[in-house]
Amino acid sequence: MEDLDLKRQRIFGRQVKRLREEKGLSQDDIAARCRVTKGSLSVIENGNRNFSFTTLLALAKALEVEPKMLLDIDFELFSE
Amino acid sequence: MEDLDLKRQRIFGRQVKRLREEKGLSQDDIAARCRVTKGSLSVIENGNRNFSFTTLLALAKALEVEPKMLLDIDFELFSE
Repeated sequence: MEDLDLKRQRIFGRQVKRLREEKGLSQDDIAARCRVTKGSLSVIENGNRNFSFTTLLALAKALEVEPKMLLDIDFELFSE
Repeated sequence: MEDLDLKRQRIFGRQVKRLREEKGLSQDDIAARCRVTKGSLSVIENGNRNFSFTTLLALAKALEVEPKMLLDIDFELFSE
């Protein structure tokens, strides 16, 4: 796992956690709303999983945001 | 694989293909710019792969677009 990939997974994880907390939702709430388990959500929020496209969509739906909102952050893709 | 997942993978695949062609890039061009092989790109564009988060970022970089642009489409998430 390249460091850059890990860094970007962490950037994404923080975004999910931020949006979740902004909406006053717990990890249990998210797990109850979609097929992402509490354990998986915790690993994703900590940036330790290269999750799939359909998991991203499931998280967006559970958080009630458009999928692109989850990626509306600077991944420093073009500054390497 | 739920039909809805497949449908959304196809929606995403068409978006990638549209952006690639708009920029006048071939599948070979994209494969040369990032670690996604031509074969994988073809499967993704046809909606037949549940690709990973880091693959999404690699595609965005190769297409020279922000990652959220790849998801700037209606996945009909909230109309089920």
